[in-house]
Formats: sequence, C-alpha cells, structure tokens
Amino acid sequence: MNASSISMKGGGYYSQNTQGAKHVIDRAGENLMAKFSELRLPAGKRPFSIVDYGAADGGTSLDLVSQIVHEIRQQSLEQEITVTYTDLPHNDFSSLFRMINAESDGSATYAQAYSNVFVSGVGTSFYQQLVASASVDIGFSATAMHWLSALPGTITDHVHAVGAVGDEWQTFRNFALHDWETILLHRAKELAPGAILVMANFCIDEEGQYLGNTGGANMFDTFNLLWRDLAEAGVITETEYQATAFPQFYKTKDEFCAPLTDPASPVSRSGLCLEQAYTGLTKCPYRAEFEREGDPAAFADAYVPTLRSWSETVFMNGLDKSRPIDERRQIVDEFYQNYNTLVRKAPEHHAMDYVHTYMVVTKARD
Amino acid sequence: MNASSISMKGGGYYSQNTQGAKHVIDRAGENLMAKFSELRLPAGKRPFSIVDYGAADGGTSLDLVSQIVHEIRQQSLEQEITVTYTDLPHNDFSSLFRMINAESDGSATYAQAYSNVFVSGVGTSFYQQLVASASVDIGFSATAMHWLSALPGTITDHVHAVGAVGDEWQTFRNFALHDWETILLHRAKELAPGAILVMANFCIDEEGQYLGNTGGANMFDTFNLLWRDLAEAGVITETEYQATAFPQFYKTKDEFCAPLTDPASPVSRSGLCLEQAYTGLTKCPYRAEFEREGDPAAFADAYVPTLRSWSETVFMNGLDKSRPIDERRQIVDEFYQNYNTLVRKAPEHHAMDYVHTYMVVTKARD
Repeated sequence: MNASSISMKGGGYYSQNTQGAKHVIDRAGENLMAKFSELRLPAGKRPFSIVDYGAADGGTSLDLVSQIVHEIRQQSLEQEITVTYTDLPHNDFSSLFRMINAESDGSATYAQAYSNVFVSGVGTSFYQQLVASASVDIGFSATAMHWLSALPGTITDHVHAVGAVGDEWQTFRNFALHDWETILLHRAKELAPGAILVMANFCIDEEGQYLGNTGGANMFDTFNLLWRDLAEAGVITETEYQATAFPQFYKTKDEFCAPLTDPASPVSRSGLCLEQAYTGLTKCPYRAEFEREGDPAAFADAYVPTLRSWSETVFMNGLDKSRPIDERRQIVDEFYQNYNTLVRKAPEHHAMDYVHTYMVVTKARD
Repeated sequence: MNASSISMKGGGYYSQNTQGAKHVIDRAGENLMAKFSELRLPAGKRPFSIVDYGAADGGTSLDLVSQIVHEIRQQSLEQEITVTYTDLPHNDFSSLFRMINAESDGSATYAQAYSNVFVSGVGTSFYQQLVASASVDIGFSATAMHWLSALPGTITDHVHAVGAVGDEWQTFRNFALHDWETILLHRAKELAPGAILVMANFCIDEEGQYLGNTGGANMFDTFNLLWRDLAEAGVITETEYQATAFPQFYKTKDEFCAPLTDPASPVSRSGLCLEQAYTGLTKCPYRAEFEREGDPAAFADAYVPTLRSWSETVFMNGLDKSRPIDERRQIVDEFYQNYNTLVRKAPEHHAMDYVHTYMVVTKARD
C-alpha cells in the first residue's frame, strides 16, 4: 500500500488511499503513544532514533512522527533526534526528502518546526539489517511486511496465496514464516534496550477475513478470475497464468505472534517481547465514498487505479519477457479495464477493506 | 559536477566526466589514507561513520569508500560502519541505492562484500547540520561546495562571479565566505573528536587559474559572450541577461584556509584544525580525448553536453517565467548549439581543466 504517487491534498476519491493508510497508522500510533511514557531518552550522546520501515514517501506517517518528536521535545529541548525512512531502492526518496524539507508546497514539517532533528533514507530491503545495532528507540511499520523477500513458488489455480492449496500453500506459508522470523531478528539487532516496535500488518483475522475479502466479492478471487479469463481467451498463455503470483502471504495473528510467544524461539531469545496484538478492520475509503456519492463509474475509476498501483508489477512480471513491452502493457491495460467494467456493473460487491494485525513489541533492557 | 546521469561503464568520451571527477576523488583519497593511521575506532558501541557530502549517485567515490571500509576491516572484523551519502533533495537517491545494493548491473559493491556496513542517504543541503553531533569519523566532499546557499545578487556584465567587479564581486565574495564558515561550523558539530574531513573544492589557484580558465578560451567568458550575443540579437531581454548568474564563487586557497588559520575565528574555536591545503589541476578529460582522436565534432558533441549538465538550470532560471517553458527550452537549446559551433570551429581553444583546493582538516580530540 504505497501512497507515493498520491497527493496529500484534495478531497473525494483522490485522497482516499492516503486517508485509509493514514487511518491505519494513526491507530498504530495510539498503541505507540500509550507506551510512550515507558521510553527513556538515550544515555550518553546517542540520538533518539525513530525508524519507519517501508515508509514510501513518508506522507502518511508524518503526523505520527511529528507527534513523537513533539513528545520528546516536551522531555528535552536538547535531545538530538534522527528519523530514518526505509524502503526498497526504487522508492521515490526524492519526493520524500522534498516533502520533509518543505520543498514540495512550502508547508513546514517537523523537520523545520523542531531543531536538532536529522532525517535520512535507507534504500535497502527490511530483510536485511538496515541501521547500526542497538541504535533504534522507536521502530514503526505499516502495511509493508506482507511483501515477501522473494516469490516462494507457483500457485497453479490462483494468483495469491490466499487461494493456494496443499503443498503450494504450505510452500508459501513456510517461506513467509521464515521471512517473518528474519524481519524480527534484524529488528531485534537494531532496537536499543527498552525500545518499542509498533507494526500494523495485513493479516487473516479470526473470521478468515483479509484485504478485499470482508463480505461481497473477494478482491483476490476477482484478480484471479479476470486473469484466468485472459488465459481462456488466449490473450495470455497457460504458462503465464501459472507464473503469476503475488509475492505476499497474509499471516494470522497467531502466526505473527508465534515467534514472540515461544520462549525458546530465536526471536524470544533475541530479547523481543510481545506487549500487545489484536486484529482490526479499516473500511475501504473508496467504497465509503461510493456509498455517499452513489456513482458507480466514479467509484470504478478511483478504486481500480489504486488496486493497479500496487498489483500491476505482479501481472507484468507474470507475462513472458519475449513479448514486446508494449504488448505486455496492452494486456495489463485490458486486464484492469475488465476489472473496471466489473465494478461499474455491480459496485455493491466491491470494496477493499483493510484487515491488519496491530502489534506492540518491546526490546528487553539489558 | 554531477555524475548521476553518466554510466560508470563504456569508454571514450562517454566516461570522461566520471573519470575526471574520480581522479579528483582518488587524489583527495590519498590525503585521507595518509592520515588514516591516526584514526581510532569509536569507543563504546557507536558505529564508525563515513559521510560523503554532495555525493550525487555515489559512483565516483565508490572506490574510496571501499578502500576505507577495507582498512577498517583490517583493524576490526566486528566494527559496525555507516556510510551516509548527502545531496540536495532532488538528487537521484534511487540510482544511488540501486548501485550500492548491486541492483543496477549485479556487480557487488562494498555493501555486499563486507558485513555490518549500513548505507543511508540524506536529502538535505550541507548548509544545515545533517547528522547527529560528534557522530562522523570521516567526512569527505569533492567538487560540491562551490555551490552557494543562494544567489547573492546580480552580475551586470557577466554570468559568473569570476567576471564580477566592484561591489557586485564583493557581495558574492562576502556571501561565499559566510557560506564557507556555515559549512565548516556544521561539519565541526558533526565530526567526532579526532575525525578527519577531506575536501576537494573548485578554487582560484595561485596563478589565477580556475575551472575552464587555464590557458586558451575562458569557459565562463564563453558562457557570458554567448549569452550576451542572445541579448544583442534580441532572443533574450537585457533584464534576463542581467538576471542570469551562477550561484557559485571560487575562493582562493587562502580564503579556504582563513577561518581555520585564525585562532580566534568561530571555526577554529569549534575545534577544526587545518592539517594540509594545496591547489591542484586536473586536465580536462574531454580535451585529452580530443588530443588523442583529433575529431573536433566528436569533441564538441561530448564536451558541450557535460557543460550543459551542470550549467543548464542557471540559464533556464535566468529567463523570464512568463515565457512558455517550451520557448525557454528552445532558447537554451540555441545557446548550447552556439557553444557547440564555437568548439567545432576552434577546438584547440576549449578545455575544462579542474582546479581544486585539496584540504585535510581534523577535529580536535576532547
């Protein structure tokens, strides 16, 4: 869920993606601020370090980071603070730096409002250690860690692990559980004693609900049906259909918690402690706008592009590289056009509610 | 001098810009490595921190950073190392991160070759403090600090401070000296006790030589004459001609050293000590290629685009904003076309030798 190409301004459909993501972050932020009083400022001259893992353009976490900086300034006027935004190398860090440095529209951010706050970006995957050991006081991540470190395998009859079965599902699950342990162990190294790690990650909740599957049409089943249709129609090959899969896995709350609740696990032994975990649903902002406005075409024209923004590379990557790039683009255009048509016909069946597991984790003091 | 759009590969003219910049960095690097034995690894758990100020895509300093990391690994297998690349917000940090993470062409860099090395980017001007106080062990900057923090004023009869006279020249000089003090005072805050700061900055040397003025045509006079021609021909207005100026100033070695040699200056009192300063000339790699190949057209077609890469925004910014952007682009196209014609006619008069002041500065131990 990447807000990098979405303006922070404007109303209606245009800002829905940002609003949805921001709602999740604000909710995670409440968990963080509730624990804030337990944080201690670093001993010695080490800066207080805040890291946003998978930050995209940093826009949706801006309010939360401002709030944290403000809280620290209540305790100390002098304490130096670093804010580190991590994402993949191809992330648009220029947009992030322009926004943080108030170059985009001139509106000041915490970086102008408070002195001794130093902002940096890290363009490396969170499947690696990203910053120095024991240097992070607040770690934060929203709607990022469902992306696996690689595609674990193929899914014969679906495009997402939510529709995988048998060995194929097991392969994805095993890979995802290992990835999750990797994420936690790297964060355990990075977190300072007493640090807080707050996360909101896509999940499968206690009722089996997940992103785009909370009643009505199942978004990933829709992706699959429309991709399958292109195979049936000969637009894509059977090989291409089978090669297409999201490098994602939605874990249950128990799966998220397992490495932290088993005292013998490497994660527990690394000093990470689970403080809180619960699932929460955030209503689809596009659907909410449709329910207010009642215009199916406007809904489809706003909703499908946001799906496309985070799913397009998956379908592009599924296509045979021997096809000219223009042909691949044409196929993917047709695919999302078909999705648009479907939404216009029966808008009441479509929505992309977010389903997250919210977690608060702390690092043991030495 | 920004190499961000220049491939690190390929031969001939194509890689000359990179080769020239890299030559300067390698030379500054020799000064650094000569002082290296005096560096101590940080006490406690603080990482060893290397900062490249004005790094562009990080390509030209890659060998030097690798060498530093290698040297530290000789002393300690465990010492964590951070490498921070700073530049303006609009710098292409994605290219930097892709290159460092070996995503561009798969060739490994120090970030893959050595463990516990953490790379980050800072998209903020070096006229601000960029990282936490007393956190930097090696600071490094090449061919970046001639850019002033803003345009100090107008230059009636030229486009660069090297052609300014009287009060106009004095205004630029005063502004530049203040900017230089600002740069040094921020670095003084950032440098850890015992740290080394190595810089190579464009200057005016003891013979009055500077970038593009080392015998033969004076590059900045050529810029000025061609821009003046457009004013005479009515292509640009007199107001536009006068509004055009590089936000640059080339200091002499003495001007670079003054804040460091005056024991009463704020810079000296901040703990910075001048260890070494000398001027050095790096022959124009484009001109050298021309002397080998003897093809005026090929020379002009390679040389003028590299001038354009770092000067174009200055001439674009000089034009009235009420002109449509396409018209402004057309004028600037014509300007560089005229420069190209000039070089083809008399290639032997054109060259852009680099003239730098190389400096080694240390931060006093507490």
